[in-house]
Amino acid sequence: MDHGLISALSASQAAARIRAGTLGCEELMLSCLARIAQREQQVGAWQFLDASRALERARAADQLPPQGPLHGVAIGIKDIMDTVDMPTTLGSPIYAKRQPSWDASCVAALRAAGAIIVGKTVSTEFAYFQPGKTRNPHSLAHTPGGSSSGSAAAVADGMVPVALGSQTAASVTRPAAFCGVYGYKASHGEFSLSGIRPFAESLDSLGVLSRSVDDIVLLRSVLLGGAAAEPRPRSVPPRLAVCRTAQWSQVEPQAQHALETLVQTCRSAGAVVSELELPAQFAGLIDAQKTIMAYEAAHNYVFETTSCPDQLSAAFQALTESGRKVSRDDYASAKREVAQAKRVLRSMAADLDAWISPAALGEAPLASSGTGDPVMSRMWTALQGPSLCVPVGRGSQGLPLAVQLVGLAGHDDDLLQTGHWVETQLETA
Amino acid sequence: MDHGLISALSASQAAARIRAGTLGCEELMLSCLARIAQREQQVGAWQFLDASRALERARAADQLPPQGPLHGVAIGIKDIMDTVDMPTTLGSPIYAKRQPSWDASCVAALRAAGAIIVGKTVSTEFAYFQPGKTRNPHSLAHTPGGSSSGSAAAVADGMVPVALGSQTAASVTRPAAFCGVYGYKASHGEFSLSGIRPFAESLDSLGVLSRSVDDIVLLRSVLLGGAAAEPRPRSVPPRLAVCRTAQWSQVEPQAQHALETLVQTCRSAGAVVSELELPAQFAGLIDAQKTIMAYEAAHNYVFETTSCPDQLSAAFQALTESGRKVSRDDYASAKREVAQAKRVLRSMAADLDAWISPAALGEAPLASSGTGDPVMSRMWTALQGPSLCVPVGRGSQGLPLAVQLVGLAGHDDDLLQTGHWVETQLETA
Repeated sequence: MDHGLISALSASQAAARIRAGTLGCEELMLSCLARIAQREQQVGAWQFLDASRALERARAADQLPPQGPLHGVAIGIKDIMDTVDMPTTLGSPIYAKRQPSWDASCVAALRAAGAIIVGKTVSTEFAYFQPGKTRNPHSLAHTPGGSSSGSAAAVADGMVPVALGSQTAASVTRPAAFCGVYGYKASHGEFSLSGIRPFAESLDSLGVLSRSVDDIVLLRSVLLGGAAAEPRPRSVPPRLAVCRTAQWSQVEPQAQHALETLVQTCRSAGAVVSELELPAQFAGLIDAQKTIMAYEAAHNYVFETTSCPDQLSAAFQALTESGRKVSRDDYASAKREVAQAKRVLRSMAADLDAWISPAALGEAPLASSGTGDPVMSRMWTALQGPSLCVPVGRGSQGLPLAVQLVGLAGHDDDLLQTGHWVETQLETA
Repeated sequence: MDHGLISALSASQAAARIRAGTLGCEELMLSCLARIAQREQQVGAWQFLDASRALERARAADQLPPQGPLHGVAIGIKDIMDTVDMPTTLGSPIYAKRQPSWDASCVAALRAAGAIIVGKTVSTEFAYFQPGKTRNPHSLAHTPGGSSSGSAAAVADGMVPVALGSQTAASVTRPAAFCGVYGYKASHGEFSLSGIRPFAESLDSLGVLSRSVDDIVLLRSVLLGGAAAEPRPRSVPPRLAVCRTAQWSQVEPQAQHALETLVQTCRSAGAVVSELELPAQFAGLIDAQKTIMAYEAAHNYVFETTSCPDQLSAAFQALTESGRKVSRDDYASAKREVAQAKRVLRSMAADLDAWISPAALGEAPLASSGTGDPVMSRMWTALQGPSLCVPVGRGSQGLPLAVQLVGLAGHDDDLLQTGHWVETQLETA
């Protein structure tokens, strides 16, 4: 079998073939490692990689009957998630040699389902703005987005079928959009974050980067310990809306166009697509998100800011310094504002399966300018619902464009079911 | 100065004397270490202790101008909180040699304020039920309570003026009650838990064990980075209520009597004390708390339960096993039930500064029977408000009795102000 083809398999496809005995775990791993060997020097997706150990584990897996739904599947883990057998640096020079004593719960759950962790993918510093070495696999001069930079790039480049990410502002959606892959940001509180250093506990959520919605559903089920709903295709088209948001005029015309095209595709396939116009009070949510993020980050990184400030980036220092200046009252009022908007949204969107919103301002900017603007996701992350980044073609520079499907907090299964329907329409469009 | 007297000082008193130059940091530390040397073999409050390093730091602190409001103050840290220079075992043999790469935010904040960490206090296994070596300093045959066993015992025994604890069910309130010290369990989300492994993220809260309310106010201010309200004594008596709860009949008559006596004391001092009778729907909250705790613990301890189950206690195995069996729907419905009750309580208690409720079922049981029943705190912890354990004399075995003052989530400053008023009435009663 051609390794190029194998490494293009989704996790669900690879797992099914391994179970059926038509693909070996070693064969799959060799294909992933070959792709990594070929491309890593340019893409720089990996913070830590132990190819020989991954291969050894794949060979061992070939000697066993399938241990779980991910038996033998190669997976990348964002380097803010603890791993008992690989360093976990959080993208910071302070922790260049840090070796945790445990696996984060998400890592342990994947391993218990038979997955093989290939390595740790590059994160920006503490999953904030300071970029790592990763470049956009579609154009090396451009950013892959952040903070789940390595996970998005590795999946987009065919190095691994799936990888874990996390989001506090736009850290799954933005890199997924820039790299042209699916990016699921779970509802707040949906998955355990044990073994992941908190950045801002009211906002932090786990995410999955993949090349198909099926893989997200599969990983979600594993991460929930099998407690997820059985995935079932929609029998009728979803009830959708477009939510252009107050930032619509900042979105590049080609990204606006891509979104409108997707809306047309959905309508042609029979979906009702209404307009979700947010009340004026939602305009303050981006600032509320920033206030909450800065306050909580300042309180979660007291050790680093007091003991080793010299090893922090200017951006991280500025964030935590601004967070220390946020008063208790301003923090509480930002949280109240979000809670209120969440209630309003719940009644406004009660009849929707999902709404379509821009995933980013447009194509990935040059890497020299940073990891891109998180503005299109801050509000949704504050509102704690799930989102799914859906790639929808290419822009004028040949780089991916994307939209995000967004849902109400706790409605992750519905959102993914809708995402699956949209993916199907895009494939047949 | 007599070391016995020095180690009886509160943190606020010690800090004031150090600032005034009438007490040396070394002198204070020597006094604490002398008490520890005298008693530790019986009490067993410490998981890790490095007396010579603590003394060295105290001597170094004497060479410096005051670095912050806790300059030179000796503090104990519950051994589930990461320390960069001391092992952090989480009370589990799995992590007997675990050395974190950072300080938990709470530890870093105390150190930045000048505090000296004497050592790590014994926690039950992962802050759940399996007891450590600690005994009740008032009677060595009895339990100190759990899970903040060592922190409560060390403070009660005069080894340190204050220590940090944490609570998911009753892990601050119960040991504070059994050991006869003040125990503040903060509102959920009040302080950063960064560097503390989550047990159940919807319930986990930080706490402080001390011998005076002043010390709690002082530590609270430091933990909030100075953002806490200026403490001010109440100008008028607080608006109180008694909340006997549905478990009242399980409370030992002498503990009931102690509570009623406190109510009389407060009334005599001019406080209006009404009755807070909880609606029938609150009866389910204890089970809801158990459901949430089991579900979240199961998802937060995937690594241990899949990789080293043999090193877990039977109680912890049973909890996580039951948690894995909780369905997503049952978990969501338990969370909804709590959220609803929280709203009801907010309107019922809007005019109260605090309510008085039993802190435990009575005196500390024998150590051979475990760490005691958390039943009197499960509901309050689920409701996410602050609570303050207040010692109110001794029972028939000569062991401490206590009540807890409870407040609405986010009203920690009010609760502590009321706690200070109650403390004053008890001192003058």
